Amino acid sequence: MAFEKVRREDDYSKWYNNLVVHADLAEHSAVRGCMVIKPYGYAIWEKMQKELDRMFKETGHSNAYFPLFVPKHLFEAEEKNAEGFAKECAVVTHYRLKTNPDDSSKLMVDPEARLEEELIVRPTSEAIIWSTYKGWIQSYRDLPILVNQWANVVRWEMRTRLFLRTAEFLWQEGHTAHATKTEALEETVKMLDVYADFAENFMAIPVIKGVKTENERFAGAEDTYCIEGMMQDGKALQMGTSHFLGQNFAKAFDVKYTSKEGVQEYVWATSWGVSTRLMGALIMTHSDDDGLVLPPKLAPIQVVIVPIYKGEDQLNAISEVALSIKNDLESKDISVKFDDRDTQKPGWKFSEYEMKGVPVRIAIGPRDLENGTVEIARRDTKEKETLQVSDLVNKVEHLLEQMQSNLFLKAETFRDNGLTYVDTWEEFVDVINNRGGFVAAHWDGSGETEEKIKEATKATIRCIPLDQKKEAGTCVFSGKPSEGRVLFAKAY
Amino acid sequence: MAFEKVRREDDYSKWYNNLVVHADLAEHSAVRGCMVIKPYGYAIWEKMQKELDRMFKETGHSNAYFPLFVPKHLFEAEEKNAEGFAKECAVVTHYRLKTNPDDSSKLMVDPEARLEEELIVRPTSEAIIWSTYKGWIQSYRDLPILVNQWANVVRWEMRTRLFLRTAEFLWQEGHTAHATKTEALEETVKMLDVYADFAENFMAIPVIKGVKTENERFAGAEDTYCIEGMMQDGKALQMGTSHFLGQNFAKAFDVKYTSKEGVQEYVWATSWGVSTRLMGALIMTHSDDDGLVLPPKLAPIQVVIVPIYKGEDQLNAISEVALSIKNDLESKDISVKFDDRDTQKPGWKFSEYEMKGVPVRIAIGPRDLENGTVEIARRDTKEKETLQVSDLVNKVEHLLEQMQSNLFLKAETFRDNGLTYVDTWEEFVDVINNRGGFVAAHWDGSGETEEKIKEATKATIRCIPLDQKKEAGTCVFSGKPSEGRVLFAKAY
Repeated sequence: MAFEKVRREDDYSKWYNNLVVHADLAEHSAVRGCMVIKPYGYAIWEKMQKELDRMFKETGHSNAYFPLFVPKHLFEAEEKNAEGFAKECAVVTHYRLKTNPDDSSKLMVDPEARLEEELIVRPTSEAIIWSTYKGWIQSYRDLPILVNQWANVVRWEMRTRLFLRTAEFLWQEGHTAHATKTEALEETVKMLDVYADFAENFMAIPVIKGVKTENERFAGAEDTYCIEGMMQDGKALQMGTSHFLGQNFAKAFDVKYTSKEGVQEYVWATSWGVSTRLMGALIMTHSDDDGLVLPPKLAPIQVVIVPIYKGEDQLNAISEVALSIKNDLESKDISVKFDDRDTQKPGWKFSEYEMKGVPVRIAIGPRDLENGTVEIARRDTKEKETLQVSDLVNKVEHLLEQMQSNLFLKAETFRDNGLTYVDTWEEFVDVINNRGGFVAAHWDGSGETEEKIKEATKATIRCIPLDQKKEAGTCVFSGKPSEGRVLFAKAY
Repeated sequence: MAFEKVRREDDYSKWYNNLVVHADLAEHSAVRGCMVIKPYGYAIWEKMQKELDRMFKETGHSNAYFPLFVPKHLFEAEEKNAEGFAKECAVVTHYRLKTNPDDSSKLMVDPEARLEEELIVRPTSEAIIWSTYKGWIQSYRDLPILVNQWANVVRWEMRTRLFLRTAEFLWQEGHTAHATKTEALEETVKMLDVYADFAENFMAIPVIKGVKTENERFAGAEDTYCIEGMMQDGKALQMGTSHFLGQNFAKAFDVKYTSKEGVQEYVWATSWGVSTRLMGALIMTHSDDDGLVLPPKLAPIQVVIVPIYKGEDQLNAISEVALSIKNDLESKDISVKFDDRDTQKPGWKFSEYEMKGVPVRIAIGPRDLENGTVEIARRDTKEKETLQVSDLVNKVEHLLEQMQSNLFLKAETFRDNGLTYVDTWEEFVDVINNRGGFVAAHWDGSGETEEKIKEATKATIRCIPLDQKKEAGTCVFSGKPSEGRVLFAKAY
């Protein structure tokens, strides 16, 4: 685990990359822009998946699976969607390799195995799914369709960063079909609420719910709702989106239903997704210079027990206590690892589990054995305490709850302190460049102004918050009338 | 649900395709050879995944995720593996589309966005994973690596069938790395046992464990272990494979470790996988002319309650009883659906749930209300019985267990009755052509003979059973000496 320690304040970006690799979360692969998610990182993703999947099912959704490939003629059917993704599509053109006649140890693409129609590796699945829904929907009885898919998608990004922006990533994409506009709008907002609930109550990340501007909207959507988080470097991160697709895809794929009254109507649609990008948000919100800090609800290992011993007799005696503690904690559904490896020293293990963000560390040494005590340390505040073994289970249960809410409150305070209300352009530029965080400012509602602000400062409108106060004001850039403040920030 | 009913004895293949579609399991997609797994089919796959995943974790494995794409130079590094899959590879050659200058509503592959090196869509992940393991393994302390991946893979098959053979399919692939040959061999067999355990105790399918002949071995393996099941039409189906890869991939990717003694050694490898093909095995083993029959342990809905009523008052009275029953059953971890839809008649619902293989159906009508009874029907034998509500929970619990073992025993009897010992070529041909099932026959051990038998009869050697009796004999085809009987069959 020896590595060059980087502090957040010195080089935030390097700190992040270092942490992702050294905490064994992910690494770059031999494929440009694609990552390997390592077992420890994947275990966190699995915990996220499990909770999200439960929430989707509790709100009436089922999982299904649709093809990885989208034939080009289907891909281009919904024009805005196609245009939005065309520049970052991996394209399959051939279906066979053959031995290279010039070097029999090498393979080459077989020019005779060219596909009649190219296949796009899905960057998102609206096209393939709506071409399928056409066969599933005839009558109002077939609606709503509430389907989710866990899948990999590919978007050929030029500049990639582990978890935050990779050519291939893992995600879930919900795709629902409804008889009415009202119902589809309700679904859009319902799933945004599910995402916000998950972000705040499991990831311990406070989020702002809002609507994207037209410029920032998902290609093919009528409206894009989002949750936005704030990272420790003052940059925003879009954590999830829920799209009201109107009848755009129904029209592109001619999906109609017969209403109770016998009338043919186009179907209304939503789609919504979160991805392995959430791993990036989780890491950047809570972690510190010593490594990952994990909210207990998403920690694969919640408690680690490290024995401090000399010789086998001491280890045996400590193991007996440790295994009994492990047992007691596990009976309360707390996940525990007892690390009795003799290949590493306790100090090394302490750093290792700090780096990996294990919420609670219990150390047991010979003196503890005599006194019936253990030393307990919490990852977030680094506080240590010596406890009677008999008090331990209650203490740990309480501590995990406390850490979960402590992390949320800390992130919320940071986010709130970083929110600045700004009324002049000078102040806007100063805050964006020097202070960061969210900037609440009046905006004239035009895409043109939005674009100019972005060019001048790299700040984008993260969202028009759902709880925006309607109030007359003056656009911070153009001086034109505004109906309320929107949230600007530099963003990932 | 109106459809042309096909009996197994009339057209087994058509019966299968019909069932897959009408039981809402899967359907063909707009992409050649790729399927859509529908919500009900996917729910069964999720139940399989959950059990397998638990078993993998209980045997010490963790999940991880590796890229979808394999750069060509890595793909060709292990020559036999590359050769084995080269003819069925989907190849990504470009990373961008652009507007077609001849028709602005269409897209075309941008010829300027050609990849420097082609990317193969993974048909299996040994190459990308072993190129990654090279960075993970330095010392004996880094071993073993016990990793599994749940993923989609693509093999460009020319003749496809839903679940059994599709261009894209879902699977899990375990990839382990070990310090010694013994350990890798133990792992290979351990995972074969996990698969057999899963097949028999969850899928209720008896399997034969064996080793593949050299001709049938996985490309790049030293030995391929397999489990083979027998379908109702007398054809075998390979349900899972576990490969001892020797040091082939370690050598191809130069993966060495330093032993405790300070010596550099190549690493030993295994890989093992099961796929959505198991869905095909599940369907074909148990189902009947009325539809799917599911072993209770893998049924997404274990009990359905159908009310039989006239008017809202009756429905309300029945619903009260039904919901109380649902509650009682769910408290025993039994999954229950109460289908009170007023858009469909009870008879329609009975057929629907028969088609979908729901193990237990409970019907409640007005007379039941008076008598405190319900009618209970089991899917496998179609037996019906009227019961007191008070006896119901015990009865259902017992019935689900009984059905699980009944389905296994029935399949086992069928499989055992279909196993024929054959000593002459004439008899061999007769049994393969007219009786089907497994044929136990002596074989001289040569690939040439194996190939000739295949050409003559379409039968292949499914495996050399692990419990093969070593006995001198005469090859059924060549008359040359044989050391024991192997199992032949026509296969999916």
